[in-house]
Amino acid sequence: MDTEKVNSMDFGEFVDVFGNVTERCPLIAAAVWSQRPFSDLEDLEKHFFAFIDALPQSGQEGILRCHPDLAGSELQRGTLTAESQREQSGAGLRSLGADGRLRLAELNAQYRARFGFPFVLAARFSDRTAVPRELARLLLCPSAQELRTALGEVKKIGSLRLADLLRADPAKL
Amino acid sequence: MDTEKVNSMDFGEFVDVFGNVTERCPLIAAAVWSQRPFSDLEDLEKHFFAFIDALPQSGQEGILRCHPDLAGSELQRGTLTAESQREQSGAGLRSLGADGRLRLAELNAQYRARFGFPFVLAARFSDRTAVPRELARLLLCPSAQELRTALGEVKKIGSLRLADLLRADPAKL
Repeated sequence: MDTEKVNSMDFGEFVDVFGNVTERCPLIAAAVWSQRPFSDLEDLEKHFFAFIDALPQSGQEGILRCHPDLAGSELQRGTLTAESQREQSGAGLRSLGADGRLRLAELNAQYRARFGFPFVLAARFSDRTAVPRELARLLLCPSAQELRTALGEVKKIGSLRLADLLRADPAKL
Repeated sequence: MDTEKVNSMDFGEFVDVFGNVTERCPLIAAAVWSQRPFSDLEDLEKHFFAFIDALPQSGQEGILRCHPDLAGSELQRGTLTAESQREQSGAGLRSLGADGRLRLAELNAQYRARFGFPFVLAARFSDRTAVPRELARLLLCPSAQELRTALGEVKKIGSLRLADLLRADPAKL
């Protein structure tokens, strides 16, 4: 997909294609369409991130709350978005044993109770042994920076998803 | 549903219940959860509207772009959200004849091309004869106020949906 193709999309098509760059937040892609034309992939990505950064804190927390748990019940039931299903499965989270799932469920619940949003991690940069380790580590850290850390993961996920969508011919965008 | 019940919801439950108060924008309900506790229905509604009003213009346009067309192909296919399906059906838009559907499709396309977002109307305050009349009227109006007018409709829709959700015992919220 080249830049010209992206810039030629009407908003319906654009939201269909880019609506899950930020998990379950098609509003963000729908807003980014206002910023076209885009000069390249970097420019497109910049507008996604600028929109996220400009939201009030409640909106940034809201983005996180639209994310599913890692290795949660939706992964088992197969009701995640296609992107999340691929990312979590790729990190080996579907093949966790019952003990591993239980341990993660407990850590996820502690994290949610502490921060008021779910633990979000770019699973493609992690694996099933690193995820519980990272969660346990964050639960011991001061909470002041956690929103910023979590939004950094949202952006890593968005970057990878954007690159995937444009991979057919990324050099052109 | 009383205020105490709403205030006791974790964010997952809150987004499940209130996620479509603004059509296909669960991010907004997920953000509003940050503002709990709510003193009553009016207070809850106030936080939804304040979030919408505080968004940059691109975000407000994004909200509108998450709305389906009135009497569009999704209504025929039955792929609208449950709320939209009820609202559009209640306004008689499912029983439009082929000519009426074609006329509305043309007006919707003109509106989208002119404003960059779809025509949004609180269908429960309208009917299948008023919808095309209102659309044709807006297409002749100056465009400067249209974003504000459209967001007013988003808020009317949100008000009605919130009232429905709390109807079981609205006096208590």
